[in-house]
Amino acid sequence: MSNFPTRFTSKVGIKYPIIQAPMAGGATTPELVAAVSNAGALGSFGAAMSSPAAIKESIARIRALTDQPFNVNLFVLGTPHPGEAELAEATQRLAPFKQALGLDPAALPPRFCEDNRAQYDALLEAKPPVVSFAFDLLDRETVAALKGVGSIVISTATTATEARACEAAGVDFVCAQGFEAGGHRGTFLGDFENSAIGLMALVPQMADAVKIPVIAAGGIMDGRGIAASFALGAEAVQLGTAFLTCAESGIHPEYKRRLLAATDDSTRLTRTFSGRYARGIVNDFVERMRPFEKDVPAYPVQNALTADLRQAAVKQNRMEYYSMWGGQGAGMSRALPAAELVAKLVEETQRRLPKT
Amino acid sequence: MSNFPTRFTSKVGIKYPIIQAPMAGGATTPELVAAVSNAGALGSFGAAMSSPAAIKESIARIRALTDQPFNVNLFVLGTPHPGEAELAEATQRLAPFKQALGLDPAALPPRFCEDNRAQYDALLEAKPPVVSFAFDLLDRETVAALKGVGSIVISTATTATEARACEAAGVDFVCAQGFEAGGHRGTFLGDFENSAIGLMALVPQMADAVKIPVIAAGGIMDGRGIAASFALGAEAVQLGTAFLTCAESGIHPEYKRRLLAATDDSTRLTRTFSGRYARGIVNDFVERMRPFEKDVPAYPVQNALTADLRQAAVKQNRMEYYSMWGGQGAGMSRALPAAELVAKLVEETQRRLPKT
Repeated sequence: MSNFPTRFTSKVGIKYPIIQAPMAGGATTPELVAAVSNAGALGSFGAAMSSPAAIKESIARIRALTDQPFNVNLFVLGTPHPGEAELAEATQRLAPFKQALGLDPAALPPRFCEDNRAQYDALLEAKPPVVSFAFDLLDRETVAALKGVGSIVISTATTATEARACEAAGVDFVCAQGFEAGGHRGTFLGDFENSAIGLMALVPQMADAVKIPVIAAGGIMDGRGIAASFALGAEAVQLGTAFLTCAESGIHPEYKRRLLAATDDSTRLTRTFSGRYARGIVNDFVERMRPFEKDVPAYPVQNALTADLRQAAVKQNRMEYYSMWGGQGAGMSRALPAAELVAKLVEETQRRLPKT
Repeated sequence: MSNFPTRFTSKVGIKYPIIQAPMAGGATTPELVAAVSNAGALGSFGAAMSSPAAIKESIARIRALTDQPFNVNLFVLGTPHPGEAELAEATQRLAPFKQALGLDPAALPPRFCEDNRAQYDALLEAKPPVVSFAFDLLDRETVAALKGVGSIVISTATTATEARACEAAGVDFVCAQGFEAGGHRGTFLGDFENSAIGLMALVPQMADAVKIPVIAAGGIMDGRGIAASFALGAEAVQLGTAFLTCAESGIHPEYKRRLLAATDDSTRLTRTFSGRYARGIVNDFVERMRPFEKDVPAYPVQNALTADLRQAAVKQNRMEYYSMWGGQGAGMSRALPAAELVAKLVEETQRRLPKT
């Protein structure tokens, strides 16, 4: 492995600089996380939608399945205060979809999001080997507290400016999220469109801007993308979509089929599921909500308003109403057990790297 | 050079698989094109805004400056038929900018674009070693005619589907234009947003989709991007922004300074200059026209309507009204003579490639 970059692997104590991306919403089961970590890469649990108690339980389950390092991811959120008129309008827009699934369109969610502070407190208690976060900058004190209990801290940035802010907050690594990436955009500073930067341009400019090592994420699906990321200056890579179609991934079988049938132009960014731009496979919901892209309430309000819709869509096998997050590399998806995928990624990358 | 890919260089008869991108609007002077070709890469002349006579004259000047292969680029355009109301509205929107530069806001352009057919006839007569095109698919007959007179033909695609259409039209190479790229998007099939694909995801999927070799373009600025592109499966790379700040480039000195001062988030896509999405440095014009992004007439009408504005902006050193096209890699710009830049790119790439 001597020709793989080492600044990430040596710090985390793992074999391969490959991270299975955290994905909230059931994809990253403890089985998936543990299988990836047991294969020598870094598994990640997407805990953003979990209660503090559920987070501790999931971490315990992961620990029962692996003695290797793993990562737990949270969002950084303030407390939402939506106006009544905004809620009424948003609820009305979602009514036809909820009615189609037999839901009460007027029912409001019990809460708009988990208690973010309590989620971080759960991590401080459970002390996972690695913690990553996104959506905003975690305060210096919490970063220091996480490091104080022994966790390595990764933050997400979509521009060099954001990466500098992450470095100043004291994190160990910064994850460069390219425009290609599936799921939510992590942008927290500046203009959304200016911050929609492809990985080819983002990684080298971020690597030039900060001293902490850069992790490349977005559109990477096989050894070609991994070797390319290393050439650009990344010390590790993070793959999300590539692991969604693994045997251990917890997503709906039809969602897996849609990923396996995807082409490079199957995805689009949309705010309509959650109130924050996220990339996923275009379906009926995304198309019909397109006129309201700029109008839906900001995250996490819209996310809470569509939670019952997305849950019902899964139960009723109606993927046309589900948020099928996926990146622009979805067309390269492979259905494999996670350990086999990791082994393949390593072998494919190895072949493309300069010998040392 | 034995570790560089060879399918492009061997066909074109050049030393390095590096193309200086064609850029219409004065950037790609015959001096720049010839300097790049003389350095062992492929210089490209952006001829889309030139009359058939001017195209032949420019090709003659390039031939006087180099005996090496070079490329000439055109758009593929139909005949525009804007409505009177559309023209009146568009003219009114531009009036404040034109007045600020002392122009008559009511003056209509003499024509909306050059005679596209006559431009291609000029190429068939001048027989440049390489011809590239974008914006649409060139008909099979013209592709065959260009190849018949000895020109190698390259087309531009932004999705795997478009690349397959290019291959079916008989072209020799397809240029994968990533979302990162400066200047106009080449998208000609499908939804604009679905086709906004980062190079990291686009190159491998396009390489998997077609048998003809793929050229990677967008956000590539140095050896890191070139080595990454080769790892992704590209047989050659095309760099535009990187050559804009060369000594031989014909752009305004202040435009060069803006590129050299750029960061990764300095650019945005806008239709407001030309009626077709193009990436450039955000300035006063782009910001003030932002509310009308979707409303301006389609290319080439808006392009013709802003032609006098852009010309006057250059003459009066008012870059806040000029289309400063540039890619997301602009923050890595270097001010060098073209031959020195080519030598540096080769050396930087060499260091990052696997030895054969």
